[in-house]
Amino acid sequence: MPDSPPRRDIRIVTETELRQIIRLDRQTVDVIEAAFAALASGAVVMPPVLSMELADVHGEVDVKTAYIPGFDGFAIKVSPGFFDNPKLGLPSLNGLMILFCARTGLVQAVFLDNGHLTDIRTAAAGAVAARHLAPERVETAGVIGTGVQARLQMRAAHLVRPFSRLLVWGRDTAKAAACADDLARTLGIDARVADSAERLVRDSQLVVTTTPARSPLVMAEWLHPGLHITAMGSDQAGKTEIAPEALVAADLYVCDRASQCETMGELRAVKAAGLWPGGTPVELGQVIAGEHPGRPGPEAVTLCDLTGTGAQDTAIATHVFKRLGESGTSIPV
Amino acid sequence: MPDSPPRRDIRIVTETELRQIIRLDRQTVDVIEAAFAALASGAVVMPPVLSMELADVHGEVDVKTAYIPGFDGFAIKVSPGFFDNPKLGLPSLNGLMILFCARTGLVQAVFLDNGHLTDIRTAAAGAVAARHLAPERVETAGVIGTGVQARLQMRAAHLVRPFSRLLVWGRDTAKAAACADDLARTLGIDARVADSAERLVRDSQLVVTTTPARSPLVMAEWLHPGLHITAMGSDQAGKTEIAPEALVAADLYVCDRASQCETMGELRAVKAAGLWPGGTPVELGQVIAGEHPGRPGPEAVTLCDLTGTGAQDTAIATHVFKRLGESGTSIPV
Repeated sequence: MPDSPPRRDIRIVTETELRQIIRLDRQTVDVIEAAFAALASGAVVMPPVLSMELADVHGEVDVKTAYIPGFDGFAIKVSPGFFDNPKLGLPSLNGLMILFCARTGLVQAVFLDNGHLTDIRTAAAGAVAARHLAPERVETAGVIGTGVQARLQMRAAHLVRPFSRLLVWGRDTAKAAACADDLARTLGIDARVADSAERLVRDSQLVVTTTPARSPLVMAEWLHPGLHITAMGSDQAGKTEIAPEALVAADLYVCDRASQCETMGELRAVKAAGLWPGGTPVELGQVIAGEHPGRPGPEAVTLCDLTGTGAQDTAIATHVFKRLGESGTSIPV
Repeated sequence: MPDSPPRRDIRIVTETELRQIIRLDRQTVDVIEAAFAALASGAVVMPPVLSMELADVHGEVDVKTAYIPGFDGFAIKVSPGFFDNPKLGLPSLNGLMILFCARTGLVQAVFLDNGHLTDIRTAAAGAVAARHLAPERVETAGVIGTGVQARLQMRAAHLVRPFSRLLVWGRDTAKAAACADDLARTLGIDARVADSAERLVRDSQLVVTTTPARSPLVMAEWLHPGLHITAMGSDQAGKTEIAPEALVAADLYVCDRASQCETMGELRAVKAAGLWPGGTPVELGQVIAGEHPGRPGPEAVTLCDLTGTGAQDTAIATHVFKRLGESGTSIPV
């Protein structure tokens, strides 16, 4: 045994540098898909989210992590949200990921990503859900919400279901128009603002909801044969985008992690309303792994509830680390 | 509101740099004392420890945090322990602390301390316990255990109870002798190896236990008037240094955090043995804040159970940040 540990480097990588390294591409989607498949295998260790509220400064902090056997590293992600920041000219959300070696626990890298890697892995999960649950043929996709995730979710979905028409709806029509313009340009397709959320849902085969809504935006009456909806906005108790009646009216409900969706996803509101028929919900990883057949048929209505998992963070962080090259600042320790 | 957030720097500080900045001195003890006092006030937000076991690689990871109103920042500490590392010539324990601004949640600094700040804040807590619970006059102090914490605990205790004689006991007599030699030199006092743990306890007015023992090292029969014991080794279910009968025989039992000591401190074993007389245990912060009178009298036997709190991490990290000067590497973000 050597007298002192060998010198080594820890890599510090900023958001600007990370944006040059990581792309929302098919490879990234595959990496996130592998994390979900591992989640279904039962070998993943994923503790409950550590959550701290700082009520007097209108802030909150979440810590997520997961260990996936077979992955070289595991990530610990810290996501602060401080909702008075915009008054100071600062973003509400920021944070970082730390990557540890899965064999020694040594710190390998600190990604000062301000939430960018979360944005990417969240959008990639939407693509995984669409790949395994949406109808084979999607002509029109719709997105509810007009922010960063609305754009990323549609770019991700287009990788796996190359739709030719896109609808956007949001409470602010100007923002919806800007989002549609951006996506029309990025994807090179027809993208426009929908007159209403109802019109959007009725006209689409694939819908993604991306809002922090606290009352439902999608109603049961709007569901139609050959529809898949991914709801990714709800990530804490109190948030909900899908009417409980719509969730139970779907032919198949799939969640990213049952234990999380029960407390912070769409499933929470359904259970609170006493509408859940019972039984353990299907997880996305089970569909990927072939343990569950997934979409019952072309005419079915499917719904996927994504709350965001530590397994995705571990997957994206190890993926980024492999692509680092010479990027970032090396700190000798 | 500016169009984009102002540029700012995040400071990355290594263990080597931190060792030059932070000292185990009276000021550090005062900072940790303030954190305990805040803990008693009820305003501190301290979520349960996030703990993840990686059984197949013989590893574990703990995440601790706390928000203390009035402190400029809050820390999130990640402590991995990988117990096969020594075979690779690497230390078992390492990790880092991240300091966030308490007003905006923005990352201010990353302390790549490999557990050094934890060592310091743990020793400082021992001094706080001794300051408030040990007899006024301590001639002989004793430490059970011979590692880093044994040395630091005695240095810290000597700041508040300047004893002239020191006893060391450990299972490995050579290590005990080395520890005694180190402390004799550092403190400039008479320090020697005790023949037994019993002899050490019987001859001391202040005892600190610093081991990862899983069966008791200190027995009830050894307690004597005018004794204070601080047990800081137990920090998870399964560890215990003090016989349950000794704990309940003390005139006063004080813990750092009742909710933690019940699950991972000495209190756990006492409750498991059915020996706890009932009632909520006194916390160290209550004694500091004057809500509890502390030591009942010079002849009393007192016992303090320290498991380590996120509040101490937040306190030490904000303290270090104030002393940084130009140290570390600045990463512009």
